[in-house]
Amino acid sequence: MKRVTKQYSKKVGTPPGELIYTGEVRPKESEIVLVSFDKGSFSKNTVLNIDELKNLDKNRVNWIIFYGFHEPEGLKTLGNIFEIHKLTLEDILNTSQRTKFEVYEKYKYFVTSLVEQNKFTKNIDSEQLSVVLKENVLITFFENDTKLANRLIERIENKKGSIWAKKMDYLFYGLLDSIIDRYFEIISYIEDEIEKCDEKVFSEIDPKEIVRIRRLRQILVILRKQVGPLREIFHKFSRDDFEFIEKGTLIYIRDLYDHTVHLIETIDVLKDNTSSIAEIHLSVMSNNMNEVMKVLTIISTIFIPLSFVAGLYGMNFENMPELKLPFGYYYILILMALMISVMLLFFRRKKWI
Amino acid sequence: MKRVTKQYSKKVGTPPGELIYTGEVRPKESEIVLVSFDKGSFSKNTVLNIDELKNLDKNRVNWIIFYGFHEPEGLKTLGNIFEIHKLTLEDILNTSQRTKFEVYEKYKYFVTSLVEQNKFTKNIDSEQLSVVLKENVLITFFENDTKLANRLIERIENKKGSIWAKKMDYLFYGLLDSIIDRYFEIISYIEDEIEKCDEKVFSEIDPKEIVRIRRLRQILVILRKQVGPLREIFHKFSRDDFEFIEKGTLIYIRDLYDHTVHLIETIDVLKDNTSSIAEIHLSVMSNNMNEVMKVLTIISTIFIPLSFVAGLYGMNFENMPELKLPFGYYYILILMALMISVMLLFFRRKKWI
Amino acid sequence: MKRVTKQYSKKVGTPPGELIYTGEVRPKESEIVLVSFDKGSFSKNTVLNIDELKNLDKNRVNWIIFYGFHEPEGLKTLGNIFEIHKLTLEDILNTSQRTKFEVYEKYKYFVTSLVEQNKFTKNIDSEQLSVVLKENVLITFFENDTKLANRLIERIENKKGSIWAKKMDYLFYGLLDSIIDRYFEIISYIEDEIEKCDEKVFSEIDPKEIVRIRRLRQILVILRKQVGPLREIFHKFSRDDFEFIEKGTLIYIRDLYDHTVHLIETIDVLKDNTSSIAEIHLSVMSNNMNEVMKVLTIISTIFIPLSFVAGLYGMNFENMPELKLPFGYYYILILMALMISVMLLFFRRKKWI
Amino acid sequence: MKRVTKQYSKKVGTPPGELIYTGEVRPKESEIVLVSFDKGSFSKNTVLNIDELKNLDKNRVNWIIFYGFHEPEGLKTLGNIFEIHKLTLEDILNTSQRTKFEVYEKYKYFVTSLVEQNKFTKNIDSEQLSVVLKENVLITFFENDTKLANRLIERIENKKGSIWAKKMDYLFYGLLDSIIDRYFEIISYIEDEIEKCDEKVFSEIDPKEIVRIRRLRQILVILRKQVGPLREIFHKFSRDDFEFIEKGTLIYIRDLYDHTVHLIETIDVLKDNTSSIAEIHLSVMSNNMNEVMKVLTIISTIFIPLSFVAGLYGMNFENMPELKLPFGYYYILILMALMISVMLLFFRRKKWI
Amino acid sequence: MKRVTKQYSKKVGTPPGELIYTGEVRPKESEIVLVSFDKGSFSKNTVLNIDELKNLDKNRVNWIIFYGFHEPEGLKTLGNIFEIHKLTLEDILNTSQRTKFEVYEKYKYFVTSLVEQNKFTKNIDSEQLSVVLKENVLITFFENDTKLANRLIERIENKKGSIWAKKMDYLFYGLLDSIIDRYFEIISYIEDEIEKCDEKVFSEIDPKEIVRIRRLRQILVILRKQVGPLREIFHKFSRDDFEFIEKGTLIYIRDLYDHTVHLIETIDVLKDNTSSIAEIHLSVMSNNMNEVMKVLTIISTIFIPLSFVAGLYGMNFENMPELKLPFGYYYILILMALMISVMLLFFRRKKWI
Ligand SMILES: [Mg+2]
Ligand SMILES: [Mg+2]
Ligand SMILES: [Mg+2]
Ligand SMILES: [Mg+2]
Ligand SMILES: [Mg+2]
Ligand SMILES: [Mg+2]
Ligand SMILES: [Mg+2]
Ligand SMILES: [Mg+2]
Ligand SMILES: [Mg+2]
Ligand SMILES: [Mg+2]
Ligand SMILES: [Mg+2]
Ligand SMILES: [Mg+2]
Ligand SMILES: [Mg+2]
Ligand SMILES: [Mg+2]
Ligand SMILES: [Mg+2]
Ligand SMILES: [Mg+2]
Ligand SMILES: [Mg+2]
Ligand SMILES: [Mg+2]
Ligand SMILES: [Mg+2]
Ligand SMILES: [Mg+2]
Ligand SMILES: [Mg+2]
Ligand SMILES: [Mg+2]
Ligand SMILES: [Mg+2]
Ligand SMILES: [Mg+2]
Ligand SMILES: [Mg+2]
Ligand SMILES: [Mg+2]
Ligand SMILES: [Mg+2]
Ligand SMILES: [Mg+2]
Ligand SMILES: [Mg+2]
Ligand SMILES: [Mg+2]
Ligand SMILES: [Mg+2]
Repeated sequence: MKRVTKQYSKKVGTPPGELIYTGEVRPKESEIVLVSFDKGSFSKNTVLNIDELKNLDKNRVNWIIFYGFHEPEGLKTLGNIFEIHKLTLEDILNTSQRTKFEVYEKYKYFVTSLVEQNKFTKNIDSEQLSVVLKENVLITFFENDTKLANRLIERIENKKGSIWAKKMDYLFYGLLDSIIDRYFEIISYIEDEIEKCDEKVFSEIDPKEIVRIRRLRQILVILRKQVGPLREIFHKFSRDDFEFIEKGTLIYIRDLYDHTVHLIETIDVLKDNTSSIAEIHLSVMSNNMNEVMKVLTIISTIFIPLSFVAGLYGMNFENMPELKLPFGYYYILILMALMISVMLLFFRRKKWI
Repeated sequence: MKRVTKQYSKKVGTPPGELIYTGEVRPKESEIVLVSFDKGSFSKNTVLNIDELKNLDKNRVNWIIFYGFHEPEGLKTLGNIFEIHKLTLEDILNTSQRTKFEVYEKYKYFVTSLVEQNKFTKNIDSEQLSVVLKENVLITFFENDTKLANRLIERIENKKGSIWAKKMDYLFYGLLDSIIDRYFEIISYIEDEIEKCDEKVFSEIDPKEIVRIRRLRQILVILRKQVGPLREIFHKFSRDDFEFIEKGTLIYIRDLYDHTVHLIETIDVLKDNTSSIAEIHLSVMSNNMNEVMKVLTIISTIFIPLSFVAGLYGMNFENMPELKLPFGYYYILILMALMISVMLLFFRRKKWI
Repeated sequence: MKRVTKQYSKKVGTPPGELIYTGEVRPKESEIVLVSFDKGSFSKNTVLNIDELKNLDKNRVNWIIFYGFHEPEGLKTLGNIFEIHKLTLEDILNTSQRTKFEVYEKYKYFVTSLVEQNKFTKNIDSEQLSVVLKENVLITFFENDTKLANRLIERIENKKGSIWAKKMDYLFYGLLDSIIDRYFEIISYIEDEIEKCDEKVFSEIDPKEIVRIRRLRQILVILRKQVGPLREIFHKFSRDDFEFIEKGTLIYIRDLYDHTVHLIETIDVLKDNTSSIAEIHLSVMSNNMNEVMKVLTIISTIFIPLSFVAGLYGMNFENMPELKLPFGYYYILILMALMISVMLLFFRRKKWI
Repeated sequence: MKRVTKQYSKKVGTPPGELIYTGEVRPKESEIVLVSFDKGSFSKNTVLNIDELKNLDKNRVNWIIFYGFHEPEGLKTLGNIFEIHKLTLEDILNTSQRTKFEVYEKYKYFVTSLVEQNKFTKNIDSEQLSVVLKENVLITFFENDTKLANRLIERIENKKGSIWAKKMDYLFYGLLDSIIDRYFEIISYIEDEIEKCDEKVFSEIDPKEIVRIRRLRQILVILRKQVGPLREIFHKFSRDDFEFIEKGTLIYIRDLYDHTVHLIETIDVLKDNTSSIAEIHLSVMSNNMNEVMKVLTIISTIFIPLSFVAGLYGMNFENMPELKLPFGYYYILILMALMISVMLLFFRRKKWI
Repeated sequence: MKRVTKQYSKKVGTPPGELIYTGEVRPKESEIVLVSFDKGSFSKNTVLNIDELKNLDKNRVNWIIFYGFHEPEGLKTLGNIFEIHKLTLEDILNTSQRTKFEVYEKYKYFVTSLVEQNKFTKNIDSEQLSVVLKENVLITFFENDTKLANRLIERIENKKGSIWAKKMDYLFYGLLDSIIDRYFEIISYIEDEIEKCDEKVFSEIDPKEIVRIRRLRQILVILRKQVGPLREIFHKFSRDDFEFIEKGTLIYIRDLYDHTVHLIETIDVLKDNTSSIAEIHLSVMSNNMNEVMKVLTIISTIFIPLSFVAGLYGMNFENMPELKLPFGYYYILILMALMISVMLLFFRRKKWI
C-alpha cells in the first residue's frame, strides 16, 4: 500500500494553501467529463476547456468528473468558477488526506481513499477521491481509476437502479456505496488468504507463512484506519440536518452506515485471527523443535555410553584381563543390550517414545 | 462458522435494493406457515400463495413464518402487501447482516444471527433470522431452522407460559428469549471444551491442544461480535419509547438485557481463559524441552570426555609408556570414576540432578 | 470457582418465569429465620410456615432470612404475600445471576455473589445472595452460608455498632459491608500466594509455579467481573434518589463505594503482577536452558575434536609414520593441549566461561 | 512497597466506624505540633494535650500537625472538638486508603499516599497522609515523615515564597505541591534505573536484569494507581466551586493538575519502555542461544563424521585391504580434508560462518 | 530524545513560581528580535534592552522573538511590562512542560515541544517553544532553533503566502503549522527506517535489528505523547469562542486539526508495524534455530550409531569371531549402508530433509 507520510514532507515549510501536486508522476493524460441528466434526458461530454463549466443548467444534475487532474492552474480557474477555498484545492492536489467531510459556506467537501486490488499482481493500491458538492453540481477528482465512475454512468444512462430518476444527493450516495463495495472485495480476498494460511498450520510450517500473515495484518490495520472515519461521517449524516440530503435518501445512508460497521467488525475479527494463526504457527514450530531435540537426545543417550564401552575395550593396555576371557566379547554385548533396555525404559517413563 | 464477508462480494457493483439471494443454495423446499391466535382460539395453516396473507384479522396476533425462503419474486409481492422497503427486502435475502433493529415508517425490522450446534458434528453454525414487526403482524424469516419456531408454536397451542394470552410484543420477546438461550447452550459447550483442554495441561502436551484452544477462542471472538449489538438493542428498548412494546413486557426485556450482559461477561472471561491455557501449554512445552536438553547434556558431558580418554589409550603409538604399566588399565578406570564423580557433583550443584 | 454457564443451560427452551431450582442439590435442610427489632426490643424466631410472615409489624425492622431455600411452591406463596414478580422469583432460584439492583413497583431486588474461602481446602467458592427490599421488610436468600447473617444478628442483639438503632436501610448497608469484607479477605489471600510465587523466582523454577500463577490470575479475572457491577450500583445509590435510603446512610454507601474502587484497583494491580511473574519465570527458564546448552557446547567442542585426533592415531594402517616416532605420543599430547587452549580462549572471548 | 490489602483484612467483620489502628506498630513517640500564623506573626508550639486545640484564633491560619498518631481515644476527642465524622476518623487510622477528597457538612477530608525513597536502601516506601480542612484550620496526619512538614514550616517562618502571606487554601496547595514533587523525585530515579538496564542490553545479558526491569514496572503500576485519582481531584477543584479555595489560588491548582498529567504520561511512557527493554533482553538472549547452538553444530557436524571414518579404520578385521595400501593413510587424510571443505562450504552457504 | 523528568527534580522543594532555568547550559548568546508589520510596512530589529519593548505600536502586529533566553531577571522585567503571571514565567524557564494552552486574564499562554532531527547524527531532539499571546503582541521563546522563525520572517518580508496581510492570529497559525510540519518530517524519516528494517527480514537476521526497531518504537511512543494534546487544543480552538482568533482563520485551524489527527493515526499504524516486524524477526530467528538443530540432529543421528559399530569392531577382545570372517569387513560396510538408508527414510518421513 501507499506510504502514509511521504507526500506531506514535500510540503514542509511552504505556506498553507500553496498548490503543489504531491501524488506520483503519471504520464497518462488527464481528462474532464461532464455528465448531465434529469428524468427526461441524459448527456455525456468531454470538457476540453474548464471555462465550459461556467454555465451549467441548475435544473439538471451536473456531474463533473476529473481523471488524473494535477495542474495547479486549471484548478485555480475551477476554484474561481465554483467558489472553492484554496485549502480545499490544496487537499485535492495533496493526495494523502485522511477521510473527512467538511462543510464550507458555499459547498461541502468530501475526501476519502479509493482502494483497489490489482487483478494481476494482487497488490492492494489506494488512491484519493475528492468530491465537491454544490447545489446540483457534483465534482469528483479521481487519480487513476475510471471503472467506478464508468459503472455509475452506465447505470444512469441505461436507467438501471434509481440514480437517473433522483437528485444529486442520491448520485453522491451511489458513489459512496461503490467505495464501500471496494472494501468488501478486498476484505473478502484477505479472508481467503487468511484461511489458506490457516489450513497450512499442520502441513507446512514455514516462517514465510508467519511473515505473510503479519503482512495481511498490516494491511488490515491500514484498512481499519481508512474505514473508521467513514463510520463517523455516515453517522453524522443521519444525525445532523444536511439540507442537501433529502429525507428519502437518509434511509440509504443508514444502510451504508450498517455496511461500514459490518466492515469494521469484520476487520477486527480478522485482525484477531491473524494473531491467533501466528501464535499457532509459532507453537507448532516450537513443538517441531521439541521433536527434533528428542530424536537427537534419544540417539545420543543410547549410543554415546555404548561407544564409550566399546572405546574402553579398544584401549591397548597390555594388562586388560577381560580381553582374554573366552566369552568376554559376549558378556560385553549382553551388557550393551542391558544398557539399551534401561535407556528405553527411561524414555518410555518420560513419555518420549 | 460461516464466512464473514463472502456473501457481500456477490453484490459488488449492483445498485442498492436489488434482490439477489446470497445464502447457500439449498435443495430443501421453502414453506410458509401462518399462526394466528388470541386468548380464545388458535389456528395454524400452511400458506400456499402469498396473496392469502392480504386479509389478516387485525384483532388477533398473526405470526407469518417463512422457512428457507429465497425467491425474489415472492418477496416483492410480500413487500407490496405489507409496505416493506426494498432495502429491508434486500437485507432479508442478503443473509449476512449484522444484528440491528431499524425503525421504518410503517414497520420495524429486526435481523440477527441464530446460532446452533450440530448435534453430531458439534460444529457451530449460524443462520440469519429476519423479523418484520407490524401492528399485530409478526413476520419471521428462517434460513433452515424449524425447531425454534415449532417450540414456540407448541407453547402457544398448549397454553404453556403466557404467550398465548398476550399481545404480539410478548411473542417477539419469546422469540428473542429463545435466541439468547441458544447462545447459552453453545457457551456452555465451549466452557466444557476449555475445561477439558485445561485438564490435559500436565498429561498430554500436544500442539493440537493449542490449536484447539485457539479455535475455541476464534469462535468466542465471533460470538462476542454477534452478541454485542443485542445488548445495545435491548438497552434501547428499555430506554426509548417504542409504542409496540407494552409497559408490562418491558420488565421481560430487562431480563433479556441481563442475560445478554451475562453472556458478554462470560465470553470475555472465557477468552481470557483461552489465553491463559495457551500460555500454560507453551510454558509446559518449554519446560519439557529443558528436561530433554538436560538429559542430553548430562549424558554427553559424562561420556564424551570418558570416550576421549579411552580413545587416547586406543592410539597405536609404539612408545606409550602407560600402556606397559602392569596396573595402567586400573589407574585409568580409577581416573574415569573420578571424572564421573566430579561431573555428578557439578550437576548436583547446578541442581540439574 | 463455580462454572459460569452450566446452570443456564438447564433452562433452555422453558418459558420465562418458570421456577426451576438450578443450584447444586444439597441434602441440608432449609431454614427460615425472622429477626425483628427496633430501638426498644429484639426478637429472633424460626419460621415453620411461610404464612406466618403475613402479619409483620411494619413499625419494626423485619429481616426474613432464608437458608438453602429451593422449593418452588413455598417461593410462590412468598411471592403472593409480598407481591414479588415471577421474574424475581426465577432469579432467586436460578442461582447464577450476575450482580444487579432492580427497582420493581412494589419492592427493590438486589442479587450478588457471596464469595468464601474454604478454611481447609483453601478453595474459593461463591454462592448467590438475593435480597428483596420492601418498606421495613428485608428478605435475604442464602444458599449455604450462615456465618454472615449470624454475625450481623449477634451485632444487633448485643447492640454493637449502630444497626440495632437504625432503619432497614442501615441493615442493608451492614449486609453489603460484610459482602465487601469477604472480597478483601480473599484478595489478601491471593496477594499472599502471589508473593510466595514471586519469592520462588530464583530458587525453584518449575512449570507448576506458572500454572499456579495463571490459576490465580483466572480467579482474579472472575472476581473482577463480580466486583465491577457493585461499583456501578453503589455509585447509582449516591447519585439517584432512592427513597428507602436515608440521607444519613448515604455517607456509609460512599464509604462502600470507596472500598469497591479500592478492590477493583487492587485486583487490576495483582492481575498485572501475575503477568509480570509469569514472564519472569519464563525468562529465568529460558536462561537456565542457555546455561545447559553452554555446558553441552563447551564440553562437546573441546572433546569431540580431541577424540577425533585420538581416533586418527587409533587407525590400523600399516604405513603411519607418526606412530613410529619415538616421541610421537608426546607430540600429540602437546597438540591436544594446544587445541584445548585455543578453545578455552575462544570461549573466554565469547564470554561463555 | 507496602502491601495493598493486608490492613483491610484486620477489620473484617467489625462494624463500620470502629477505630482500630491498622498501620505497622512503631515504637517512635507520636507528637502534635500547632503552627499558627498570619501576615504579622508566626508561632509554633508542641501540643501536649488535645484539649489545648479547643480555642484557636480563627483569624489566623492554624495548622495542626500529627506525627505517628494512632491512639483511638485521642482521635475521638479530636473528632468531638472539630466535629469529624467517625468514618473519617476510621480512615485516618486505617492507613491503606486510596487517594480521595470528600466533602462533609462541616469539613473537607483529603487522604493520599506520601511516597518516599529511603536514602540508603533505595527502597520506595509510602505512608498515608490525611488532611482535614476546616475554616482556617488545617489538620494533617503523617505516619512517619517529618521532612515535608518541616520544610513548609521553615518556608513560612522565613517568609520564603508566599504561604506566610496567604490563607489556608494556599497552605493546602503548598502541601499538595510537595507531595507531587516527591513523585517526580522517584520517577526520576526509576528513569535512571531503566536507562541503566537499557545500556546493559549488549554487554550483560542476565535474567537478573529482566527481573529488575519487571520490578521497576511493578512499582510504576502502583505509582500509576496512586497518581490517577490526584488528577481527578485537581480537575474537580478547578471545575467545581469550592468556597474554601480562593480564586487566585485556582491558577496554582491548575499548575498542579499539569504536573499530575505530566507524571501520568511519563509513567505510561516508562511502563512502555520497560516492556520494550524486557523484550530486547529476551531477543538478545535468544540470539545468544542461537550462537551457542551454531558453534556446537559446526563442531559436531565437522568432527563426528571424521571420527566415524577414523573409527572405521580402527576396526580390527583381519581382511581390510585399505589398511595394507602403502598410501592408504594419506588417501584417508585427503578424504577427511575434502569432507571438511564440503562442510565449510555448506556452512558458508547457510551463512552460519 | 531528552529525558522526561530530570529537569523537574532540580526544583523539588522550592516554592512555586521561583524562577530557576532548568534547561541545559548553553554557551550561545541569547538574542531578542522584534518583528513589526502591517499591510503597509515591515521592520525587523534586534532588541538590546528589554525596556525598549514598553512602547509598541498596537496598530501593527508585533512579534517579539527570544532565542536561548534564560536570565530570570530579564524575564521578571518582561513579566512586569506585559503583565505575565509568575507561573507562566516559571513554565517558560522550566523547559520540560507538556503541551498546553492556558487562558490567563491578560493573555494566553501556549507551550509545546519543537522537534528536530539533527542533519548529521540523525538524532531526534526536542526543545521547548513558549508563546505568549496578547492583543497584537506575540512573544515566542525558542531554546535554540532559529530556522523556524527565520523562515516565517522571510515569508512575511517577501510577502509570500498571506501572513503579511493578516492579523496576529494568522501569524500564530503560521507558527503552529510549521511545528506540525516538523513532526511530518520526522515521522517520514521513521517510516523510512522501519521500511529498511522490514526489508532485512529475510536477509539479515540480527538482534541489532530488533533493538533498532524497538528504539524506533520508543521514539514513536514519545512523539505520540507530544502530539496528543495538540489535537485537543486545536479541537478546543474550533469549538470554543476565542476572541483573538478571527472567524476566517478558523478554517485554517481546522486544517491543522486534520493534520494532527493524520499524524496520530500514522504514529499508531507505525507503532503497530514495529510490533509486527519485531515478531517477524523473532519468528525467523526461531526458525533459523530449528534449521541449525535439524542439521545437528541429522548428522549426529546418522554418524553416532555408525561410530558405535566401528568402535565395537575396534575392541581388542581375543575371541571376536566376526573379525576373522573373510568378508566380515564388507558385511559391516553393508550393515552401515543399511543403517544410513533407514535413517534417511526416517528423516524424509519426518519432513526434515
Ligand atoms: Mg484495533
Ligand atoms: Mg481491534
Ligand atoms: Mg476488536
Ligand atoms: Mg479482538
Ligand atoms: Mg487483537
Ligand atoms: Mg490472540
Ligand atoms: Mg472483550
Ligand atoms: Mg475483558
Ligand atoms: Mg476481552
Ligand atoms: Mg480480561
Ligand atoms: Mg482478553
Ligand atoms: Mg492472559
Ligand atoms: Mg481488566
Ligand atoms: Mg483492568
Ligand atoms: Mg488496569
Ligand atoms: Mg494494569
Ligand atoms: Mg490489566
Ligand atoms: Mg505483557
Ligand atoms: Mg502476555
Ligand atoms: Mg505486564
Ligand atoms: Mg496509557
Ligand atoms: Mg496504563
Ligand atoms: Mg501505556
Ligand atoms: Mg503503552
Ligand atoms: Mg511493547
Ligand atoms: Mg497509542
Ligand atoms: Mg497503541
Ligand atoms: Mg491504533
Ligand atoms: Mg495502536
Ligand atoms: Mg497496536
Ligand atoms: Mg502485532
